[in-house]
Amino acid sequence: MLAAALDLFSRHGVSGTSLQMIADEIGVTKAAVYHQFPCKDDIVHAVIAPALEQLGRVTAEAERLRGRSARAEAVLAGIVDLVVRNRRLTAVMHSDPAILDPLFRTPQMQELERRVFELLAGPDPDAEALTATVMISGGLMVATTSPFLEGFDEDALRAHLLSNARRLLRLRPPAARS
Amino acid sequence: MLAAALDLFSRHGVSGTSLQMIADEIGVTKAAVYHQFPCKDDIVHAVIAPALEQLGRVTAEAERLRGRSARAEAVLAGIVDLVVRNRRLTAVMHSDPAILDPLFRTPQMQELERRVFELLAGPDPDAEALTATVMISGGLMVATTSPFLEGFDEDALRAHLLSNARRLLRLRPPAARS
Repeated sequence: MLAAALDLFSRHGVSGTSLQMIADEIGVTKAAVYHQFPCKDDIVHAVIAPALEQLGRVTAEAERLRGRSARAEAVLAGIVDLVVRNRRLTAVMHSDPAILDPLFRTPQMQELERRVFELLAGPDPDAEALTATVMISGGLMVATTSPFLEGFDEDALRAHLLSNARRLLRLRPPAARS
Repeated sequence: MLAAALDLFSRHGVSGTSLQMIADEIGVTKAAVYHQFPCKDDIVHAVIAPALEQLGRVTAEAERLRGRSARAEAVLAGIVDLVVRNRRLTAVMHSDPAILDPLFRTPQMQELERRVFELLAGPDPDAEALTATVMISGGLMVATTSPFLEGFDEDALRAHLLSNARRLLRLRPPAARS
């Protein structure tokens, strides 16, 4: 059901998808969908939750490292991988902020966002690093939906998002550091 | 009326704003709004059109220059300025893609987007430059709404968006070129 929901969300947007459409897509009654997910928000949550949990793990792992570069590199690699492997989901989250923001701007999510931001920008970022970090968040979102990058496979997209984000953050590539 | 509409769009989203709300905001009847703008799409168009015309001028001016760096620098400076001076409008355009995309994904807009993209990425971009260019588009959008950059005044925001975008595109700052 969650796969069908994601498929419909990415074709029609979250706001353009009804419980009835999800029921039709998987060939059950609306009551059956309703039984498991009393409202659409519950389905949206269930579709997105695994990616948010993954983001939480990536963040906690990066925080266990020492040194700004190592921490930034770890969280960056984790987020890029998450975004690339969930290209359609990222696109959905990017496409319907009016519906999704109230659902996910919880205090916990804002705290997670703050921790990710500090890992990327460093503990005491100047204005240039703040701007770079913000641009990365928008840049990664847009890259998953841009028609200009449609032909990239996952490995190419991952590699080029990483190297561009490193350039923004003025991080040396890992190979150059060893 | 357009200022009132932009104000409402940025508070409630385009989808959350009705003709009635616009009428109430400026103290006229709904019929008066309806007389000038028969449907909400017409108001959205009128609010956004000046920025799109400006984008067209910036693009045409950059295309008259010679050399990849000069062209990229000119269109980048023009777009950053446009985005920074229309911070709320950019936020609105960013926030309601389900409504705004069908309105603005016209063949003319897609052609303009292709020209801007070629100016930024260069005539024969490799995968790294393609990715950088896409990340700039998302990065500029997000920077206008990010709470992390709320304290930046227009000049600071303009300067840091420009220097970060140059680093992404591997453009030297203009001073270093003279």
